[in-house]
Amino acid sequence: MEKVGLYHFVAEPYLTDFRGRVTLPMIGNYLIHAASGHAGERGFGFNDMSERHTAWVLSRLAIEMREYPAAFEEICLYTWIDEVGRLFTGRCFELTDGRGKTFGFARSIWAAIDVETRRPTLLDGEALGAYITDRPCPIEKPGKIAPAESRSEGIPYTIKYSDLDINGHFNSVKYIEHLLDLFAIDQFREGEIGRFEIAYQSEGKQGMPLTLHKAEAAPGKYDLAICHEGKAICRAAATWR
Amino acid sequence: MEKVGLYHFVAEPYLTDFRGRVTLPMIGNYLIHAASGHAGERGFGFNDMSERHTAWVLSRLAIEMREYPAAFEEICLYTWIDEVGRLFTGRCFELTDGRGKTFGFARSIWAAIDVETRRPTLLDGEALGAYITDRPCPIEKPGKIAPAESRSEGIPYTIKYSDLDINGHFNSVKYIEHLLDLFAIDQFREGEIGRFEIAYQSEGKQGMPLTLHKAEAAPGKYDLAICHEGKAICRAAATWR
Repeated sequence: MEKVGLYHFVAEPYLTDFRGRVTLPMIGNYLIHAASGHAGERGFGFNDMSERHTAWVLSRLAIEMREYPAAFEEICLYTWIDEVGRLFTGRCFELTDGRGKTFGFARSIWAAIDVETRRPTLLDGEALGAYITDRPCPIEKPGKIAPAESRSEGIPYTIKYSDLDINGHFNSVKYIEHLLDLFAIDQFREGEIGRFEIAYQSEGKQGMPLTLHKAEAAPGKYDLAICHEGKAICRAAATWR
Repeated sequence: MEKVGLYHFVAEPYLTDFRGRVTLPMIGNYLIHAASGHAGERGFGFNDMSERHTAWVLSRLAIEMREYPAAFEEICLYTWIDEVGRLFTGRCFELTDGRGKTFGFARSIWAAIDVETRRPTLLDGEALGAYITDRPCPIEKPGKIAPAESRSEGIPYTIKYSDLDINGHFNSVKYIEHLLDLFAIDQFREGEIGRFEIAYQSEGKQGMPLTLHKAEAAPGKYDLAICHEGKAICRAAATWR
């Protein structure tokens, strides 16, 4: 089995934003689809993990887009493992149009949790390690994100049916959607997000009253957070251009 | 070219709801994907319509599900045209597992609007009519929906970046998502929606202050609406079982 997996998508016109461009949450869906396919085909997918009472949990994600795919454009998404530690593994992505143009890159960090205790479990370093490759992913790793919650009021939000994933937790991609919706629509008319990164800190659940936070850290650079009772369940950062 | 089109999907586990079942908005995406593919392959798709400065607009949609596909289940989605009028055409759908089980059926009504005036244009009855077939679709057509807005307070809602489609209007599937989110999460734990129908009345746009309405019409039967300045831009109905 190849170390690098390749998955194909077409930017559906009815799923793009008002600019006719694929959205960051949709790119998040593509990345998870590819990650899930790549892992499944190599013996450590959703079902393999379930058999061991474990599940992959996305811990951090950074996406850098040079250009957002337009409606009807083909997307060739490459994914590969770049490192495997005791508790975390790194997975990289490159999005291209299959004809020489790179749309962007992404980096993600995953943990395998025990489905009962919800605590991280030791990774099978041997199985995963066999697929490590040093294919370049020329973007910075997900880093430390300053707390937006200490510098902004916060907009109350209640978790709804459409926010919940198969485990009954706040869907990873929905976090991104709600955070982007903190920006005025016109900001997407005048510019676009060059880099978006997010760190998932604890699981959002039904009934948790949340607050959504946005604080400008520098011109065009925003720190974001989703908090429960004042404590961040996720932090994110968006850099506009 | 066959009159009936067939499209394949797999229920992605990371896109299901907390029950591990495909959601109605996701089914909406599947239906639109199939409608768009079926039309495009037969010469009256998005690009063909664009060339004539027209676009398809979904006017009404009714979905009846006997069973919601579970994670990893294959979905074979059949779509065909059942009628063509002067201004509206009907398109039906059947969702199966490809092995004899029918998950559900859907019926939709579409208009072709002029992209400048946003008014309906005359349909090309000859081109569309060539594909009419009488394959059975044993569910009721979308019908009249009582106004929920006169019987409920309404929850204020502001259109956000992620709500807008490629035309800068409220995305058809996002209407469904926001209306379903009016129901408490626990209602989806105790039951499920057998039939959902929606009538799109006018286009939601950036900056429109909206209100979301839900009124119980009979036990387990709800009328829903999204209003702008007291006037419905869409009405919907959900029947639970």
